[in-house]
Amino acid sequence: MDTADFDQSEYAARLARIRAAMARDGLDALILSDPSNMAWATGYDGWSFYVHQAVVIGPEGAPVWWGRAMDAAGARRTVWMGDDDIVGYDDSYVQNPQKHPMETLAALLVERGWSGGRVGVEMDNYYYSAKAHAVLAGSLTLVDATGLANWQRAIKSAAEIERMRRAARIVEAMHRRILEVAEPGLPKHHLVAEILRTGTLGAGGHWGDYPAIVPMTPSGLDATAPHLTWDDRPMRVGEAHFFEIAGVYRRYHCPQSRTLFFGEPPAKYRRAEAAVQEATAAVLATAGPGATCEEIAAAFNGTLGRHGFHKDSRTGYSIGLSYPPDWGERTMSLRRGDRTELKPGMVFHFMPALWLDDGGIEITEPILITETGVERLCTLPGELFVKT
Amino acid sequence: MDTADFDQSEYAARLARIRAAMARDGLDALILSDPSNMAWATGYDGWSFYVHQAVVIGPEGAPVWWGRAMDAAGARRTVWMGDDDIVGYDDSYVQNPQKHPMETLAALLVERGWSGGRVGVEMDNYYYSAKAHAVLAGSLTLVDATGLANWQRAIKSAAEIERMRRAARIVEAMHRRILEVAEPGLPKHHLVAEILRTGTLGAGGHWGDYPAIVPMTPSGLDATAPHLTWDDRPMRVGEAHFFEIAGVYRRYHCPQSRTLFFGEPPAKYRRAEAAVQEATAAVLATAGPGATCEEIAAAFNGTLGRHGFHKDSRTGYSIGLSYPPDWGERTMSLRRGDRTELKPGMVFHFMPALWLDDGGIEITEPILITETGVERLCTLPGELFVKT
Repeated sequence: MDTADFDQSEYAARLARIRAAMARDGLDALILSDPSNMAWATGYDGWSFYVHQAVVIGPEGAPVWWGRAMDAAGARRTVWMGDDDIVGYDDSYVQNPQKHPMETLAALLVERGWSGGRVGVEMDNYYYSAKAHAVLAGSLTLVDATGLANWQRAIKSAAEIERMRRAARIVEAMHRRILEVAEPGLPKHHLVAEILRTGTLGAGGHWGDYPAIVPMTPSGLDATAPHLTWDDRPMRVGEAHFFEIAGVYRRYHCPQSRTLFFGEPPAKYRRAEAAVQEATAAVLATAGPGATCEEIAAAFNGTLGRHGFHKDSRTGYSIGLSYPPDWGERTMSLRRGDRTELKPGMVFHFMPALWLDDGGIEITEPILITETGVERLCTLPGELFVKT
Repeated sequence: MDTADFDQSEYAARLARIRAAMARDGLDALILSDPSNMAWATGYDGWSFYVHQAVVIGPEGAPVWWGRAMDAAGARRTVWMGDDDIVGYDDSYVQNPQKHPMETLAALLVERGWSGGRVGVEMDNYYYSAKAHAVLAGSLTLVDATGLANWQRAIKSAAEIERMRRAARIVEAMHRRILEVAEPGLPKHHLVAEILRTGTLGAGGHWGDYPAIVPMTPSGLDATAPHLTWDDRPMRVGEAHFFEIAGVYRRYHCPQSRTLFFGEPPAKYRRAEAAVQEATAAVLATAGPGATCEEIAAAFNGTLGRHGFHKDSRTGYSIGLSYPPDWGERTMSLRRGDRTELKPGMVFHFMPALWLDDGGIEITEPILITETGVERLCTLPGELFVKT
């Protein structure tokens, strides 16, 4: 068996973790709408999250996959449960204002005898709409369980870490390819085409899966705006070019960002680089079992401040299994107020992006908390890349 | 000016269409959470929909862009409104269970004097979560306005159709590249890497944008499950291979699917091909101004039935501007019960996919309703592709 495969005991352990959290919160059943949580609990993998679907976990037995009838075929080919626990709804419910798929989910809970108690739903998740909630609330007692399953995913198994290591090899290959191909005058979409190609070909003998976010590759002033996507303008000398990308192996993400400057970087970019490097060193010295998320942020922000820089936004977040539109796990954030204690097996994207008045610098690190401290998952040099 | 650019009069006309629908439905303000609707109304374009954001349309004046503070920079670079109508919220609201970004949106409506009346929200949209609704409902009178803005997008302007024609050239280039590269033994992810590269390089001198759905490329039995994504298994002789892909030009999609068979196709595939071809001809003869969506579906299903085939799911949907996770407009469906009348400028993905017991066949057509009938946007032959 491939060391990155999940065996049945792993799925059983995941289900036990979810059920323990359900018991803690007094839930009799749980409806998971987050595709990442659905996949983590059952193995389900398909681009079907644009229609209503869910995994339901009742008080006992296997989870139930529920979705559009045509996607039940995909469920049968990817989940560990048997056919009795795969339930499809009729296609006439798809995007039809006359009726709603959640009517059939409510009926399923009644049929299974799970409709009488407190039912958890992920109220603040993409793909669990206000309308879905209103329909279910017509016949069920709903309780907000946002993040319940996400938190169970925080500590990764050995097989999950192996997937993330493979993803790390892929993102390294993508950055190496960028350094080979990028040159002044190259239209940005030509570079993005190479990034997508390289990420999909994979690395180290392992194929690349699609990322939950497309490559973010802004240049110059556009790099002051972190989430713009590409166009066909040529790359220019005297500008910083961001590459916020992820390698992905079987839905597990390893994001890493680097910045490339054509020509001699202005002094402020060198000062920003030095500040980020020293602040990163402070983080790597602080992170490890027992430290908290906000202590990491404090180590970073304190060092940054001594260099005269300031960052308003969080400096990192938990990563792992994900689907669009976000590769974060939406649990821990490296910022003030997050007192979560780090434990071995947690993985973060440490994300010390600085936005300057005419561009920005991103030199980020995916990090694994180990028994004794912290390990960088990638081996790329932590520096501003320069081509002159 | 590029004929695919939108000038200010086009945005003014869009806003007038939305306000007319608001008046019809008795809405004093409208909150758009669908990134496609946000882009259509304002030009906003960024991969920031993984955090809460919206465009608010009040009783008069310009729309207001509202989102994460760091994305306000992207708004300033993409929307047509001025800085006064771009409002960012503090980063501490991001994915923080202690507080919710919608608290700041509610405050914005109060500040603008728009909080007293009936406020429309897109209750059944991705990105408008049950939690977002609950927070807003604490201080506003909310009315379901799902689809209100989507419906205004149904009839495309000349500039929009030009974008879709450019996207059509791109998807044709992608299919031609597939036919060049695909061969027995080729690992699927190698082919997908080429598809992504070709789609991004674009065609006809126009760059390619990211599709709202990644390439769907199932083979053989996996093709009975329509939404599985790729892996590294080699393509095999004696199997049908689906390619459900879209060319995209500046967020406008032209999806088209084709099926490739290695070796001599079994008779049932040839029968399915003939049935789909004849049913498509029936659709092209029926579609045009005045016909209804369900008449198109009836023309298709009737012809298919005479060939002994049957399709449960809808045979097409409206297309145009889109963001992940769906390239459909989520308004019109070509199926029984949808009595929407076709009008010039509407564009559909006519999607006669047939799933067989050991695979499937997809030969689909993006079609534009014209003044006199219908026009195929793509020129690829409507046939089962075969490589022997």
